[in-house]
Amino acid sequence: MNVDAPPENITKSASDHNTGEAQAARLQWGGRFSEGPAAIMQAINASIGFDHRLWREDIAGSLAHAAMLAHQGIISQDDETAIRNGLGEIHAAITSQKFTFDPALEDIHTNIEAWLVGRIGEAGRRLHTARSRNDQVATDFRLWVRNAIDAIDLQLRDLMRALADRAAEHAGTIMPGFTHLQTAQPVTFGHHLLAYVEMLARDRSRLADARARLNQCPLGSAALAGTTFPIDRNMTAQALGFTAPTANSLDAVSDRDFAIEFLAALSIMAMHLSRFAEEIIIWVSAPYRFIRLSDAYTTGSSIMPQKRNPDAAELTRAKTGRIFGALLALLTVMKGLPLAYAKDMQEDKEAVFDAADAAELSLAAMTGMVTDMQADEARMRDAAGADFATATDLADYLVRDLDLPFRTAHHVTGRIVAMAEARGTDLASLPLAAMQEAEPRITEAVFGVITVEASVAARKAIGGTAPDNVARAAAAWQKALS
Amino acid sequence: MNVDAPPENITKSASDHNTGEAQAARLQWGGRFSEGPAAIMQAINASIGFDHRLWREDIAGSLAHAAMLAHQGIISQDDETAIRNGLGEIHAAITSQKFTFDPALEDIHTNIEAWLVGRIGEAGRRLHTARSRNDQVATDFRLWVRNAIDAIDLQLRDLMRALADRAAEHAGTIMPGFTHLQTAQPVTFGHHLLAYVEMLARDRSRLADARARLNQCPLGSAALAGTTFPIDRNMTAQALGFTAPTANSLDAVSDRDFAIEFLAALSIMAMHLSRFAEEIIIWVSAPYRFIRLSDAYTTGSSIMPQKRNPDAAELTRAKTGRIFGALLALLTVMKGLPLAYAKDMQEDKEAVFDAADAAELSLAAMTGMVTDMQADEARMRDAAGADFATATDLADYLVRDLDLPFRTAHHVTGRIVAMAEARGTDLASLPLAAMQEAEPRITEAVFGVITVEASVAARKAIGGTAPDNVARAAAAWQKALS
Amino acid sequence: MNVDAPPENITKSASDHNTGEAQAARLQWGGRFSEGPAAIMQAINASIGFDHRLWREDIAGSLAHAAMLAHQGIISQDDETAIRNGLGEIHAAITSQKFTFDPALEDIHTNIEAWLVGRIGEAGRRLHTARSRNDQVATDFRLWVRNAIDAIDLQLRDLMRALADRAAEHAGTIMPGFTHLQTAQPVTFGHHLLAYVEMLARDRSRLADARARLNQCPLGSAALAGTTFPIDRNMTAQALGFTAPTANSLDAVSDRDFAIEFLAALSIMAMHLSRFAEEIIIWVSAPYRFIRLSDAYTTGSSIMPQKRNPDAAELTRAKTGRIFGALLALLTVMKGLPLAYAKDMQEDKEAVFDAADAAELSLAAMTGMVTDMQADEARMRDAAGADFATATDLADYLVRDLDLPFRTAHHVTGRIVAMAEARGTDLASLPLAAMQEAEPRITEAVFGVITVEASVAARKAIGGTAPDNVARAAAAWQKALS
Amino acid sequence: MNVDAPPENITKSASDHNTGEAQAARLQWGGRFSEGPAAIMQAINASIGFDHRLWREDIAGSLAHAAMLAHQGIISQDDETAIRNGLGEIHAAITSQKFTFDPALEDIHTNIEAWLVGRIGEAGRRLHTARSRNDQVATDFRLWVRNAIDAIDLQLRDLMRALADRAAEHAGTIMPGFTHLQTAQPVTFGHHLLAYVEMLARDRSRLADARARLNQCPLGSAALAGTTFPIDRNMTAQALGFTAPTANSLDAVSDRDFAIEFLAALSIMAMHLSRFAEEIIIWVSAPYRFIRLSDAYTTGSSIMPQKRNPDAAELTRAKTGRIFGALLALLTVMKGLPLAYAKDMQEDKEAVFDAADAAELSLAAMTGMVTDMQADEARMRDAAGADFATATDLADYLVRDLDLPFRTAHHVTGRIVAMAEARGTDLASLPLAAMQEAEPRITEAVFGVITVEASVAARKAIGGTAPDNVARAAAAWQKALS
Repeated sequence: MNVDAPPENITKSASDHNTGEAQAARLQWGGRFSEGPAAIMQAINASIGFDHRLWREDIAGSLAHAAMLAHQGIISQDDETAIRNGLGEIHAAITSQKFTFDPALEDIHTNIEAWLVGRIGEAGRRLHTARSRNDQVATDFRLWVRNAIDAIDLQLRDLMRALADRAAEHAGTIMPGFTHLQTAQPVTFGHHLLAYVEMLARDRSRLADARARLNQCPLGSAALAGTTFPIDRNMTAQALGFTAPTANSLDAVSDRDFAIEFLAALSIMAMHLSRFAEEIIIWVSAPYRFIRLSDAYTTGSSIMPQKRNPDAAELTRAKTGRIFGALLALLTVMKGLPLAYAKDMQEDKEAVFDAADAAELSLAAMTGMVTDMQADEARMRDAAGADFATATDLADYLVRDLDLPFRTAHHVTGRIVAMAEARGTDLASLPLAAMQEAEPRITEAVFGVITVEASVAARKAIGGTAPDNVARAAAAWQKALS
Repeated sequence: MNVDAPPENITKSASDHNTGEAQAARLQWGGRFSEGPAAIMQAINASIGFDHRLWREDIAGSLAHAAMLAHQGIISQDDETAIRNGLGEIHAAITSQKFTFDPALEDIHTNIEAWLVGRIGEAGRRLHTARSRNDQVATDFRLWVRNAIDAIDLQLRDLMRALADRAAEHAGTIMPGFTHLQTAQPVTFGHHLLAYVEMLARDRSRLADARARLNQCPLGSAALAGTTFPIDRNMTAQALGFTAPTANSLDAVSDRDFAIEFLAALSIMAMHLSRFAEEIIIWVSAPYRFIRLSDAYTTGSSIMPQKRNPDAAELTRAKTGRIFGALLALLTVMKGLPLAYAKDMQEDKEAVFDAADAAELSLAAMTGMVTDMQADEARMRDAAGADFATATDLADYLVRDLDLPFRTAHHVTGRIVAMAEARGTDLASLPLAAMQEAEPRITEAVFGVITVEASVAARKAIGGTAPDNVARAAAAWQKALS
Repeated sequence: MNVDAPPENITKSASDHNTGEAQAARLQWGGRFSEGPAAIMQAINASIGFDHRLWREDIAGSLAHAAMLAHQGIISQDDETAIRNGLGEIHAAITSQKFTFDPALEDIHTNIEAWLVGRIGEAGRRLHTARSRNDQVATDFRLWVRNAIDAIDLQLRDLMRALADRAAEHAGTIMPGFTHLQTAQPVTFGHHLLAYVEMLARDRSRLADARARLNQCPLGSAALAGTTFPIDRNMTAQALGFTAPTANSLDAVSDRDFAIEFLAALSIMAMHLSRFAEEIIIWVSAPYRFIRLSDAYTTGSSIMPQKRNPDAAELTRAKTGRIFGALLALLTVMKGLPLAYAKDMQEDKEAVFDAADAAELSLAAMTGMVTDMQADEARMRDAAGADFATATDLADYLVRDLDLPFRTAHHVTGRIVAMAEARGTDLASLPLAAMQEAEPRITEAVFGVITVEASVAARKAIGGTAPDNVARAAAAWQKALS
Repeated sequence: MNVDAPPENITKSASDHNTGEAQAARLQWGGRFSEGPAAIMQAINASIGFDHRLWREDIAGSLAHAAMLAHQGIISQDDETAIRNGLGEIHAAITSQKFTFDPALEDIHTNIEAWLVGRIGEAGRRLHTARSRNDQVATDFRLWVRNAIDAIDLQLRDLMRALADRAAEHAGTIMPGFTHLQTAQPVTFGHHLLAYVEMLARDRSRLADARARLNQCPLGSAALAGTTFPIDRNMTAQALGFTAPTANSLDAVSDRDFAIEFLAALSIMAMHLSRFAEEIIIWVSAPYRFIRLSDAYTTGSSIMPQKRNPDAAELTRAKTGRIFGALLALLTVMKGLPLAYAKDMQEDKEAVFDAADAAELSLAAMTGMVTDMQADEARMRDAAGADFATATDLADYLVRDLDLPFRTAHHVTGRIVAMAEARGTDLASLPLAAMQEAEPRITEAVFGVITVEASVAARKAIGGTAPDNVARAAAAWQKALS
């Protein structure tokens, strides 16, 4: 039973329309507004269809606020106790799906407060003292985004661990390294997987920075100017896990930076995932077949049982659009808004909820695919050995052992590769004599550097693809992430 | 009863999380995926949570397809009759909310087909002959967008009519015309309102072009290559109101231009509405008070009864972000997708549904506000008369009557305005003698051109703000839109 | 000699900075603003660095305006003659790169007018009568966009013709048709190429609609309210090739729909090109090698002569981002702008110029690649024959010849494909007896439908991939585009 | 003399076109590509038109690389000396504008290397040992972005200081605080200005985080797999001010996160500036006139000398679109790109350069306006006192002094405000007796809380608008920023 699904009675009114003629379509489409202003204004003001997701945060915020009010003597201890018990009942009621959200009460805050007043009476009417909807919603939403960051951070850690595990397994598995999707130089599959670990580590780092930056408490900023009550903002901030209260009340109720920064971090993360998803889609296509995904992460066809459509990868790639869209939407909403609160800012939540959901799904799908995929090492190795992928190693040999200037070595290498191409052979199969036509000083030692195994093994400098490097890096990540 | 609301049992699973510590958050957040691949793949593949909105279009498409199959002898007449009756029952069941959508059946198409097979047996299994999910969904979605265009077109017409009515009423009501939000020249309020009628007319024109372009039928393109059955695509196209079948099967199943073009047209429209919304917000702010909105389109405060927050205008302005975001999302999804169908394309619908809903709400709100608003003619007139707004009329007089070159006339005017400013008077109150210091040939006739009334009356060329022009234009629009 | 390159003396001031410490960087970076307000305001106001590209349009607009002023008796015939001759001299001076653009004169309009006044004196000062910068720039920019549309339309026609020619050549060349980048059914290469012809035809259609919609003349709308002079707006509109004057002066100077609609059409077009570019990149990668691009459209490496990086395709794919960015930039600029002209609107031109340049380059590159590419028909044919790509044909046979219901036929086919997979053979090599285990009524006739040649040949319905269809469609396009 | 302006001979080829008929337009427009593939490929490959801005970074990178090569014995000390001297000459030549950039040499890296080889011969050919264009450009671009961050950080500090200075000056200047652009509660002008200081402080914090994250050195990653030479990556990293070398060579050459994160931070910053710009535009409009900008930051009209168009504010608002566009352009470019380097990534620089230029200009303009603006304190105070802006203070009094529950106090306040509205008076002018009709326990003390001065003075909790708070916060910022 999912207590976080939208309550059944508040699902967003989704107008629809008919394939019939226009007038009929109109009646269906615009029907809900034919009642006039009241219907329009309810559609505009009612946010309960989405902001019910803030229920835990709203209760937590109210608990902290009430405790502070009592501590400061602004409300009585008895009132505080009544409020605390009432909010506890509401939490239980929502968890057990016994709470009925009322669209007429517009938003989650009013729904909870109205229920509370209905239950505990006058004490409930005192809860909103020294508080406004503006600072309340800013607080709730920050808490929600903070929790979303924490949850996504854990998912990122899981994905990184899955990648590091596969990288450890494939530290020495040779595959072609591509530039321009053309075979360039051999690398190891583990090295390729660890490239994504680096990207995701930056994503976690960005989210951590965003979390630290958002972690100030707006509660107590009231409508826009602060309050005249002797509140203790440090106390509420601490109770809610914030490091401090926000410093300027106008800014506190006008600020949605934390939401936008979260969306920007998710956008970059989604872009990373889209790159790996694209690679998976190409790698499972028939001409590549570098990897194989099991039925668990593909869909087939009743008619073509061999077909394994990489739907999970395609959706992960596609969710990128949605997350970029959410980022642009919120940037656009905030552009040019005068201080302080404007109703425009109510558009913030759906974009963030939708992007967080998309991120969650993408990460779960990607982690599943990484764990599931099986590499076809033979096909990878064959592809890595084709196309003279070790030409660079030959050129480096000419520079290192024969002291040719780099640019000169390149020209000599080009001539040798051309010979191999003309003979239809690969570099390592070219006779020494042939190479010596291009550069007489080449010796047998050259054959020690132009195999794909030698090529990857030689790339030992920091960050290079040498299997030892990769194994070491994978192990370090496994340890760091355990 | 709203038959188009999302069925209660298929609401999108909305994960949420706690204000507690991270591990708890994780369990709640990622909980639904802890079951592993099956849960992930269902989340990816199940589109019934949103594509149920295509139910009318899906039934219409199947009716047309079955009739064609029978006509061509591909299925029997008896089968066709059974299918037709079965689909009729489904239509009735959905309309009366007796149809249960099953998320395990993934999408609207499978839900309907499964129900049909359950009801009519083998005939139901023949419905999908010579058809694929790919051409079916492309057809359904085109029909939906076409209907949305028709519905929005009607809303646009309503809004234009409301504007034309108010413009007719205010053809001669003088207000300041702004550039850079600085008073520039007097215009009439009617003229200002008709500027929006022009914008909206272009929006309708764009939607009409988009409609004509999308109105080709993909049905019969099958999965991607066409079908081996002797189908009659002209027959299904005609039955569904399309002008022709699409010309290339690969294109037909890969194409989402119609959705993007729809979103682009809505984006420009939303931008137009955001401009008027911004003006309304400024005009109802205390220092302006050019117009007043009634309680029907504002929200107040229990504590500040004089406060009339223009929420409807603010939301209309904000929805722009959401619609821009949907456009970018779908463009991003389609970027770089190889032919033909890819699962990425399943992301098309929610963006379009959401943008269409936002457009609908914005248009309804704007039409309501246009009808509702009351102009404060005195305040507008006063503001128009301030700030030497008729300086251009003086300069034109110097050119027209005294034959000064335009650039010279500007310099003379500047000197006269500076005099008036120094004396703390307006242009029309400046003595003739003073003006003659700047240009001796000025006569009493000048006073006939530098009142705000004279200024607007003189702008008679096509498109100018002269009240006669405005009244004529408003009447023409009223007639055209009636 | 390129007369349209930015004049050397007006190149955009590009600040830069050092790798040294921050203070040095600051001096370099912000140096140009250390002079204070004057430097900032010049940077803001000077648009000559980009709007010089409007020079032809500006001269054309002034010629039409002067002729009308003279015709209406607002200026003398002698003045008109002097203006016309002066503008002719300017045209010649710019063409021969003898015209010096002066940044101090801010924009192209002032540069030209100042030069004219310097040359012909007082007559030049009369040119701006009954005109304002606001309607002048709106007119110039519409003309520029209209010309850009015409030029891009010709490029689109060229690309479509190149595609149609290659499609005619490859009407029967068999390749795998993909969904999800998985082999699905055989198609012909010509059919695939014609899918892009359809997309580009829609692009042309969108541009044509945009052109028709923009083709109204703002000239005469003056600053925002129209003019008091007895101008003939129909005359100028006609002289400049517009179908009519714009109908509302406030709208005319506030409207940038034409620029946004142009960018939206280019965005969809760029998305189309990005899809083909992506396919080219995949097709030339080593495991595919479906096509080969010559050195003319690839870049190599001095060291790896076999490497052919598809740079032209990659850039075409990448330009998509730039064009989307331009669209969103301009939508963002216009969001929430009150009427009428605001300085914000000066940001319109660079976005449009940059996107038009990117589109031009992408189209030229794509046309070149389409003409240049050589298909490896054998590799395409082999890939099409693998992976049981004709399973659908087998299922269709079961439905058509044995009257199995569609869904039942799918299950039977699945069993037969599984047998073939288990035996490591393809469908056409499976013995009849084996098939009959799955469905006893299958006869020898089945072998007539399950070859890739039979598969494509059978898809004869409108839009299907049958070579006859493709040849006919290619020929029709060749004729239409000739 | 600006040594960083684009060299005159490499200005981007800007095609243009005529107002004439289409064929002529075509020749002009596509003329540069009529030469065929060579022209197209040059347009695609030549980045020197923009990447010349990397010249300082490229020289710095090469100096560090050469020193390391010599230290490791990969090149000789003599070669290193020759390279160092040669690069010094190039630096001097570019600084003194004596360096000629050659478009045929494509990019800044080749231009510099070719010049070096021409000058010092064989030693120059050894510079590129153990390096590739891919890691070279990644290093240069990171250095450029790092410098841009440093420069923008200084500009942000300047703007914050200017705001803090004005806030200190106006710590007690009362203005209306708005929500929904409706008068809500009085605040002080200083408090309002400090809200922007908070926003900009977050912007600096975001840039600092981005800087720390980007500050790893890609040099030594070579083409994609690392190098076979015994390089010391720590040495080059340290020489260039990086904290460490990058950890994975594939990631290092594929990564443009640092550019996107920079653009995301600039987008949020631009959004902040757009909000203040919008306020300035509204505040200088005639009905508000809260502030006045001098001629230094406005543009006038020769004809309307009283007109002060806030062009600087409008451009600042508009640049937001351009920066958002750059962010989305680069996100779009990177979406779905397989590893490692692809030519698509060449599109990264122009977006970043353009956005950095726009940010620089916006910050300079805003700092100028903040310093320049003069507040009309009387008009602000009058507006703050209107519209019953202290109703909240009355309600708080009822709660605090009379112990009414908050929700009850609101209802009482509403009744009192309604009375005042009916009598056409403000709250402070309402007789006590009248208030007592609504709530008998109200005493004279109420008049001590419902003046605007009392209202702001009472908001003393952390973050509230009390002048003491504001003065203290302004002083703290002044100190922190000095």
